[in-house]
Order: sequence, then structure tokens, then C-alpha cells
Amino acid sequence: MKTYRHDVVVHWGDTDPAGIVFYPNYFEWFDQSTRLFWDSLGLDWDSLAKKYGIVGLPIIEAKARFIAPSMFRDEIVVETHISKWNDKTFEVSHAVLNRGVRAVEGYEIRVWAQKRPDDPGRLKAVPIPEEIKAAFE
Amino acid sequence: MKTYRHDVVVHWGDTDPAGIVFYPNYFEWFDQSTRLFWDSLGLDWDSLAKKYGIVGLPIIEAKARFIAPSMFRDEIVVETHISKWNDKTFEVSHAVLNRGVRAVEGYEIRVWAQKRPDDPGRLKAVPIPEEIKAAFE
Amino acid sequence: MKTYRHDVVVHWGDTDPAGIVFYPNYFEWFDQSTRLFWDSLGLDWDSLAKKYGIVGLPIIEAKARFIAPSMFRDEIVVETHISKWNDKTFEVSHAVLNRGVRAVEGYEIRVWAQKRPDDPGRLKAVPIPEEIKAAFE
Amino acid sequence: MKTYRHDVVVHWGDTDPAGIVFYPNYFEWFDQSTRLFWDSLGLDWDSLAKKYGIVGLPIIEAKARFIAPSMFRDEIVVETHISKWNDKTFEVSHAVLNRGVRAVEGYEIRVWAQKRPDDPGRLKAVPIPEEIKAAFE
Repeated sequence: MKTYRHDVVVHWGDTDPAGIVFYPNYFEWFDQSTRLFWDSLGLDWDSLAKKYGIVGLPIIEAKARFIAPSMFRDEIVVETHISKWNDKTFEVSHAVLNRGVRAVEGYEIRVWAQKRPDDPGRLKAVPIPEEIKAAFE
Repeated sequence: MKTYRHDVVVHWGDTDPAGIVFYPNYFEWFDQSTRLFWDSLGLDWDSLAKKYGIVGLPIIEAKARFIAPSMFRDEIVVETHISKWNDKTFEVSHAVLNRGVRAVEGYEIRVWAQKRPDDPGRLKAVPIPEEIKAAFE
Repeated sequence: MKTYRHDVVVHWGDTDPAGIVFYPNYFEWFDQSTRLFWDSLGLDWDSLAKKYGIVGLPIIEAKARFIAPSMFRDEIVVETHISKWNDKTFEVSHAVLNRGVRAVEGYEIRVWAQKRPDDPGRLKAVPIPEEIKAAFE
Repeated sequence: MKTYRHDVVVHWGDTDPAGIVFYPNYFEWFDQSTRLFWDSLGLDWDSLAKKYGIVGLPIIEAKARFIAPSMFRDEIVVETHISKWNDKTFEVSHAVLNRGVRAVEGYEIRVWAQKRPDDPGRLKAVPIPEEIKAAFE
């Protein structure tokens, strides 16, 4: 099973008056890591759009548990892997490591979706092709 | 049970190339609404720090389900209430309404914590006073 | 000469470990105020695109002077007006007032531009119609 | 004269519905690059605070000219150098290069300041030591 490592530097503007990372930033880093992971396998959204007619990988759920704070100048790693394949959705899990300690863990659930032929303003979830799942093994 | 309504305007910079809100922003609006809710009851963090020796209301978990996208110029409402009191933590639930439709729903779990007397760099969860819970009824 | 007032609440996530607003946020509030100002006069970018073929109001320059810090919970006002009309560009000035004190002042220069007929990927500045200028008097 | 190069990846969340970087992000990258530059020379703010009694490097002015847009997935470089030393302030200039093209250029003016002995809530600009200036040659 493939894992992606996304290195992130905690900048001054990412932290709050308590001196720690303001929590929505972790979700921004999750989103980045998911995208970089897929790109690293040649599965960028533009290519997927052309080949499968899907529209990005829309998010339908996100969750994080904050175990230990990270601070200005910390160099953290977001470790990302696909933790579950469903028929039309998948769960991508993220763990933030700070000096080897698990600081945050969470996941995103994203959907494999196309525009509805009868109403392009709306999306329709469709089954994820097997070769996509295989690419992450 | 009290509910707080936080009005949010979706600005250009909150949206992404798909024309919809970039999802970490919802957590930022959750955080804002929790703070405004407590402030609106006279329970701002500075007063709580003085009276109870706690340090803000650190977050330990956050989750959201994204049901419908919101777009540039949408005027949305974050409806916030305390959905569960535990001994030392509580869950604050948020629903984002867009033109009356439930667009996002989620929660934060936050902890009632003081600095450890023996190690002020670390926090210790302590029981939430009954009068705090009563203030939200 | 018309002026727009954009009320902004400084939230926890807008501030840094020094307890003051992280400066890029001011530019975000400038951008918001410019948009709200034009919208308030019925000159939203979608209507302008349809009527004049322009593409938003692309920014070509932005500047701010930071005179006094603003802090968590401060309720500030961004006062915005068009400070200069050029042939194909205009300058929109912003002053941030905090409790009546001028805390920040700055401007944006934006361009009135259409897609090039021969190369839609590139923009071409064109003269600003007189009725647009007149709408701000 | 020393120059610092700060590599930045343009992420999905940095871009707007026009598909280009939302401009306040450039100032965030300027701020990051200034900090990383000083850190790279052993002149981090904590050390400077201890040795010289200064409080970070507060910003008093920032400006940018936007020459060409950057897009999702672009890998840009912020090139940073000290462009001017004044007695109590300095100007740090930033150029954003995208595929070798100058996409944005700007500067920040920051002040060498200590807390006032009589009023620690306010700052007082003091002369920049010569050895600080020399460190950037």
C-alpha cells in the first residue's frame, strides 16, 4: 500500500496568539497532501477529467483529532494513504508527525463523480474504476 | 438550549477554481462561531482564564460533512449549539445554512483545561463547572 | 465622491503569536471591500462582464502602510473610495479605522481589461467608460 | 549581497475562481521568505530578542506589483534580499519568479524596535546595529 509524505514548514502566519497552529490549517495541509499524492502517481485531476469524465475529487467529509500542538518553525510531515475504498467514494487518511510524534490524525472522504448529463450543474457519484484502486497498492 | 447564529459572507478569496468554498474555511467559520457564542454569554476566554484558570478552549477534534457547495457572494449562516457536555470536554455542533438549505454540518470537541502546576508547558483537563453548563440552557 | 464602509471583526485565526493581525489579512479585507463597494452600486463583475466584456477587475498593484496594530476581537472598519481614475486603470484607496484611529492605509490599482480576441488567454487593458467613473461620484 | 530563495508550490487553496493565485497569498509568501532569510543567517527573532531586546521585526509597509498570474501547481521562487538599510528601518525586496519569468515584485519595510521602558505596550524604533547590516553583505 502506497504512502505519500508531504513536508510542511509551520510559518508564523499559521500560528495563533497561543503560539500554536490554528487548526483549520491542518485541513489545508490534508488537502494539499491528497492532491500531491494523486499527482505523484500520474493521477492528476486534469488527466482524470479527460479519461474518466470526473470533476476533481469533491470532498464530502473531513475529520481530525488534535493530539499535540505544533508551533512556529516546526517542520512536520503529513503522511497520507488511502485507508478505504468504497464503491463510489474513498477515505484518505492523514497523520501529522512532528519530531516523530503523532501530532494530528484525520481523514477526508472524497467522491468519484461526474456531471449529470441532464443537469451539468449537479454531480452524480459513479463507481471507482479498479485500475485506480490498483494504482495505490 | 441556546443557539448562536453567525452570519458569514462568502468572499472571492474563500472560493477555489471550482467556484466553491475551499473546505478548510468552514472550520475557520466554526471556530469563529464557537468564540462568538461564548462571548455573547459573557463567557469570553479572558474572563474564564481569570475566574477558572483555564487556557482558552483547546480543540481536540473537529469534523464536517459537506452536503452542498456554497459559492462566491452566498450569505450563509453558521448555527451553533452545545450538543454534548462531558465531564471535562464538550461538543459544539455547527450547521451551515445556505438559503435555508443545510449545506454543511459538523462539530468541534473542546476541552476545559488548566496548565499543570508542575509543568506549565502542559495542560491538564479538569471538570467543567456546572454553572458553565447551565449558562447554555 | 462615494465611500464604502466594510465592517470587519478580527477573529482569533486572523492574529499571530504577537497577538496582532497577521498583515496579509489586511489585503484580503481590501479585496473584499473593493468587491462589496462595486456590488453595492450594481456594478458586480458578472454584470460588467456581460455589458462590457471585461474580466473582473484584475489587480496590478497593492500597497499598505501599517500604522497601529489591531487585535483579536477588535471591530474595525475598512473605508474605501476610488482615489484616482486613469484611462485604463484606477486606484481604490482603503483606510482601516480601529476605534476611530487610522490603523492601516493602502490602495489597490486595478485594470479594466478584456480578453484579447486573438489570444483569449491574455488580457488587454481598454479605456474605462465614463458612466462607470460617474457612478462613483 | 546575500539573496535568499524560497521555493513555493501553488496549491489549489491558494487560487481563486479565475484559476490564479489570490493576491494576499503573495504577501504571506513574502513574510515567510523574510523570516527564513534571517533564520538562515542565524538571525532568528528569538535570538535577536535576547541579544538586542527587539521584538520581532514589525512591518510598517508592504507593496507588490502583479506582473503575471501564477496558477495551481506552479512551482515558484521568491527571491529575497535587503534592498535598503535605513537608520532604524530596512527594506526587504521580493521577486516572484515563475518558470524564470518575473511574475510579482514587491517589498516590505520593517522596523528595528524595542518595547518602551516606560510603556511596554508600545514600541520604540532604535538604530540597527552595524553587525546586523554586515551579516547580509
